[in-house]
Amino acid sequence: MTDVLAPGSTIGILGGGQLGRMLSVAASRLGFKTHIFEPSATPPAGHVADRVTTAGYEDAEALAAFAASVDVITYEFENIPTSALDLLESQKPIRPGREALRISQDRLTEKNFLQDLGLQTAPFADITDQASLDTALAEIGAPSILKTRRFGYDGKGQARIKTPEDAGEALAAMAGAPSILEGFVNFSHEVSVIAARGVSGEIACFDPGENVHRDGILHTTTVPARLSTGQRMDAVLMAGKILNALEYVGVLGVELFVTPQGLIVNEIAPRVHNSGHWTQNGCTVDQFEQHIRAVVGWPLGDGQRHSDVVMENLIGDDVDRIPELAKEADCAIHLYGKAEAKAGRKMGHVNRVVKAQA
Amino acid sequence: MTDVLAPGSTIGILGGGQLGRMLSVAASRLGFKTHIFEPSATPPAGHVADRVTTAGYEDAEALAAFAASVDVITYEFENIPTSALDLLESQKPIRPGREALRISQDRLTEKNFLQDLGLQTAPFADITDQASLDTALAEIGAPSILKTRRFGYDGKGQARIKTPEDAGEALAAMAGAPSILEGFVNFSHEVSVIAARGVSGEIACFDPGENVHRDGILHTTTVPARLSTGQRMDAVLMAGKILNALEYVGVLGVELFVTPQGLIVNEIAPRVHNSGHWTQNGCTVDQFEQHIRAVVGWPLGDGQRHSDVVMENLIGDDVDRIPELAKEADCAIHLYGKAEAKAGRKMGHVNRVVKAQA
Repeated sequence: MTDVLAPGSTIGILGGGQLGRMLSVAASRLGFKTHIFEPSATPPAGHVADRVTTAGYEDAEALAAFAASVDVITYEFENIPTSALDLLESQKPIRPGREALRISQDRLTEKNFLQDLGLQTAPFADITDQASLDTALAEIGAPSILKTRRFGYDGKGQARIKTPEDAGEALAAMAGAPSILEGFVNFSHEVSVIAARGVSGEIACFDPGENVHRDGILHTTTVPARLSTGQRMDAVLMAGKILNALEYVGVLGVELFVTPQGLIVNEIAPRVHNSGHWTQNGCTVDQFEQHIRAVVGWPLGDGQRHSDVVMENLIGDDVDRIPELAKEADCAIHLYGKAEAKAGRKMGHVNRVVKAQA
Repeated sequence: MTDVLAPGSTIGILGGGQLGRMLSVAASRLGFKTHIFEPSATPPAGHVADRVTTAGYEDAEALAAFAASVDVITYEFENIPTSALDLLESQKPIRPGREALRISQDRLTEKNFLQDLGLQTAPFADITDQASLDTALAEIGAPSILKTRRFGYDGKGQARIKTPEDAGEALAAMAGAPSILEGFVNFSHEVSVIAARGVSGEIACFDPGENVHRDGILHTTTVPARLSTGQRMDAVLMAGKILNALEYVGVLGVELFVTPQGLIVNEIAPRVHNSGHWTQNGCTVDQFEQHIRAVVGWPLGDGQRHSDVVMENLIGDDVDRIPELAKEADCAIHLYGKAEAKAGRKMGHVNRVVKAQA
């Protein structure tokens, strides 16, 4: 392919959840078709995609047919098996590239990468067994948190260690998976930067949002975040450093802890990010379209905010509030088309436009 | 069905063009699926719909299967054959209802309906032959315009009569179709009101937009329109009168001529309207979502504008300007996924956000 795709081309998306769904809608605005690859039946993204392939990541034939049918491949989640990526990459470009996936798939690799860039992270240590955990706890101390190196999200695959006595139970909870101990960071609040880099290296950032979590899941993102001008600039520069180091193409989410000692990187996500959903009602080009623009080689939106927004996730039964939410003025509803409202399941979100910019 | 549909329900849309496409996207935001019914192959709306039926309006079996698969039926164009409507309506509710279609399908019926409501229209006369045209011309005068009563859009099925000598040629251009002669209205500019009425009778209007046409096709809509406060109120009241008279459910477009003698109704369209596309980037709930909200029995958005917008249609080769347009800040691109850029074909539009409201 050339670097720039024309309208009418097809974008392949790995993963058919809500992020794939909103990416698909954004792609349609720019005249692109999408083809979703997803192992589960009736994925939310399928309602608004031109094509859906229902197959597993070990199905080489399905992967090859998928790759043959699209012009570029992107993804909505980072835990794509390496074998599938190898096969796909031999046929079509994958954006963002493999390096971003390699690093973000593994918490230890990611922390080392960030430190090598000169960015601050929580203190951390590689945990392989009880002995390495004891050594790490002696150095990092408690409270701290033990996390599997791979496949964690929304608080899953994590165990808190309040006192050193919790160590054994926490290690057992990892079920033998390679893990990482992260020290406690004394932060006042968490913010995130949704940043994008285009094929020719240009960078555009959205204003940082301030995140509040509940039960380990993002609850609200408020824009603007409480940050000094200096902190705001730091946040954007840090995101830019990460994007350039990865020669990244697409949208990246960077979660940051705000501390008296500066901004500390919590984690990065090589994709559109829940904390960037506010851009749908705060910016002319939202994070989903920004990602699509990057992936197809188009100029990026400038990230400017036309309105202040508070995004609130609708988790599980929250979706029962829709009849009331629909009555609120300036409340934009975004539902994901998921059939069943299980506890802890992200069913949708609302963006409350709280103030327009003059 | 009950009057209120829950997320997860399916909305049937007759017509798979750009309006159906943008309705489908809006429906997805509220968690609804869409099923498109469209005679042409590969309709633009199909790229973002859950299902597509490719069949003609005379195909009773396909219509019945379509109706059986959806919870409510709406449409993106008014010229749906009566036989198809009869069949569909026997199975599922059609919103907006039949009365709106009956009236807007026929220019003569529409003009009479508007006059009966006490609204001003251009002078008009029913034309069946040369004699009735001669009589009408003697009364209404030239310049005037002869239009087929049915199936006209974007300047098609129309012939201008500059002097009475043009009458014969104009009548020939109607090819025997029942027609209407419309007198010339001396207007300063054209505006349109995009108005909505919900199932329980509540009404919400968007701010009137000012329309500029080129070669008989809408070129730009600018919001706010040049209107006095009184005119703005008149426009909204007129739209409300029409909606209530039709017991309308959904979004309706009303085109108005601005004259020193007041606002004169040009025509009404019982659907989302090209002159309402600006709402996608000017309002929290745009005209497409507003229509979906009405059709599924949800509360309407309040129609408030957060930004001033200039909408520009991309017709035919205009689409070649996309690489440049994509570089403009505050320029939202909306392409329709049409494969071929024929002359006069609506390929997309851009919404330029020119000023945010404080």
